[in-house]
Amino acid sequence: MADQVKLHGTWSSPFVYRVIWALKLKGVPYEYVEEDLFKKSTLLQQYNPVHKKIPVLVHGGKPVCESMIIVEYIDQTWPHKPLLPTDPYEKAIARFWVKFAEDKGSIIGSLFRVSGEEQEKAIKESLEMLKIVEEHGLGEKTFFGGDKIGIVDIAFGAFSHWLGVIEETLGLELLQPNAFPRLHAWTKNFKEVPVIKDNLPDRDKMLVQLKGIREMYLASK
Amino acid sequence: MADQVKLHGTWSSPFVYRVIWALKLKGVPYEYVEEDLFKKSTLLQQYNPVHKKIPVLVHGGKPVCESMIIVEYIDQTWPHKPLLPTDPYEKAIARFWVKFAEDKGSIIGSLFRVSGEEQEKAIKESLEMLKIVEEHGLGEKTFFGGDKIGIVDIAFGAFSHWLGVIEETLGLELLQPNAFPRLHAWTKNFKEVPVIKDNLPDRDKMLVQLKGIREMYLASK
Repeated sequence: MADQVKLHGTWSSPFVYRVIWALKLKGVPYEYVEEDLFKKSTLLQQYNPVHKKIPVLVHGGKPVCESMIIVEYIDQTWPHKPLLPTDPYEKAIARFWVKFAEDKGSIIGSLFRVSGEEQEKAIKESLEMLKIVEEHGLGEKTFFGGDKIGIVDIAFGAFSHWLGVIEETLGLELLQPNAFPRLHAWTKNFKEVPVIKDNLPDRDKMLVQLKGIREMYLASK
Repeated sequence: MADQVKLHGTWSSPFVYRVIWALKLKGVPYEYVEEDLFKKSTLLQQYNPVHKKIPVLVHGGKPVCESMIIVEYIDQTWPHKPLLPTDPYEKAIARFWVKFAEDKGSIIGSLFRVSGEEQEKAIKESLEMLKIVEEHGLGEKTFFGGDKIGIVDIAFGAFSHWLGVIEETLGLELLQPNAFPRLHAWTKNFKEVPVIKDNLPDRDKMLVQLKGIREMYLASK
């Protein structure tokens, strides 16, 4: 009980998968609790009274909220196979890109809830954001931190799987291989890591969900 | 040279003061470089090519960007008088509030650039944000982390001095002592810490600057 690990999430959230990947990379056993976001459980509201959002990791009865804070918590609590560099400068660089993913990455998710001119604007902003990651973040490395998967890869994880499903739903291609050769190679490298490959939500099921959300948005216009 | 510390900032930025407070609390000597945001230096653009924003801390020639990431860098590089708790759970709680300050705190700064109905909305959101901090963040403690100043106090530092100047410029009172007794007490506790008291931008000079920004906004309407 004292060391029991529970993860409250929803099946298709990239934020929840950040935590799943960190736990699996560390080999930490956990129990998964699926939440219904239309009818949030009393427990979820108790665990995260400020935001009432998933993911929440409950370790020995104590809740930790916010996906990337949970990933850092996991990295410190189970320190083998570290996800963050130990050098303070390298750590600051990693945290810079984690913050960038947190602050700017969500523009891609917003593509669903816009159309017409607003969609044009959101596409432009998405491409500018991806360009910054391509030019400043990744370099010639296999992963953001070098030759091993680390915290920045986890933060940008949604670009690897979710982005493609979003592109297909909306009939767009943002991450064109010619324009983003490094990021394009990275999505492949990332998805070839066994823990990632084995822990991704089902693409067909996601397509059904995202098409439903898109149709609901268009019907409400 | 190898250990030289330089801080690029502007005189009235609460983000820059976060770094100044961390350096002063640790007793780290540094050279301050005032930047002109209307004419950013080539160095600033080299140091922070992604955002081109202050503050930037340059340590031994290497730049660290983003105020709260700089504060964590300082805490790890000069570990005496720690600003973050060492326990992973306490650390996650502190990081939760730092993220809250980063994500939600800026609503207060936006009050300057709105009027009429938009201002009413921004005031309502500011009060809701302050209420969350009052009810969930602070408790009965002197500082966010307990009886000593720490990273969360630094993150919320703008509430202590800048908020009052904003209130005076706009003719508002957001942080009413009756509605926010804990936060109100905290602003006093925070400003009584010698390093804070001795390192705040001049209030009269700030009023002149903020009134100028407000007049420019209203004239452009």
